[in-house]
Amino acid sequence: MNLSPGQLDLLFQALGDPTRRAILERLARGPASVSELAAPFDMALPSLMGHVRRLEESGLVTSTKDGRIRTVQLVTGAFTPVRSWLDEQRAIWEGRLDRLDDYVTRLMKDREDGS
Amino acid sequence: MNLSPGQLDLLFQALGDPTRRAILERLARGPASVSELAAPFDMALPSLMGHVRRLEESGLVTSTKDGRIRTVQLVTGAFTPVRSWLDEQRAIWEGRLDRLDDYVTRLMKDREDGS
Repeated sequence: MNLSPGQLDLLFQALGDPTRRAILERLARGPASVSELAAPFDMALPSLMGHVRRLEESGLVTSTKDGRIRTVQLVTGAFTPVRSWLDEQRAIWEGRLDRLDDYVTRLMKDREDGS
Repeated sequence: MNLSPGQLDLLFQALGDPTRRAILERLARGPASVSELAAPFDMALPSLMGHVRRLEESGLVTSTKDGRIRTVQLVTGAFTPVRSWLDEQRAIWEGRLDRLDDYVTRLMKDREDGS
């Protein structure tokens, strides 16, 4: 997946809202129409559509219109850039802990050698 | 980690900014003073401090002040709620694909039995 600049911003910002995360949780179970998505929320349809649009802009979902019904579905691999970023952070962090570990081991060995 | 309501919102919102992600990437390598964090950015110190405060509010970093120097560090396990949410979505999604797979297998078997 080619990530345009700012795409990671849009992804994280899209995920920073409970309604949008609930929509994604529903879509992980399969595609749904906008009215099906709206059902569990006490929310006017235009507000819900606003959230769907934010999710589309971030690349997390796509939607197609057939007559009066708009069906929304999750994009396969949509979370990959977010996961990759988190994995990178973990790798850096664990690399740091490994280096700390090596340092302490060396310190203890030097002490032993010196005693 | 006990997640207060809205904590996941704060986490994702904190991550939805390139400067804040760059600060976190730096902190994954180890604690840093605010001026060390500011160095790679062409940014006034108060703006940088604003980002650090947002990261603190989200629970991703903590900071301690010693004299005039404020040192910022990453909180261990800070990304866990974000990872957990992503893992849940993946589990739901994969569960759905498994069910689709079962369905297709059953469909093909029924066809064979009927032929």
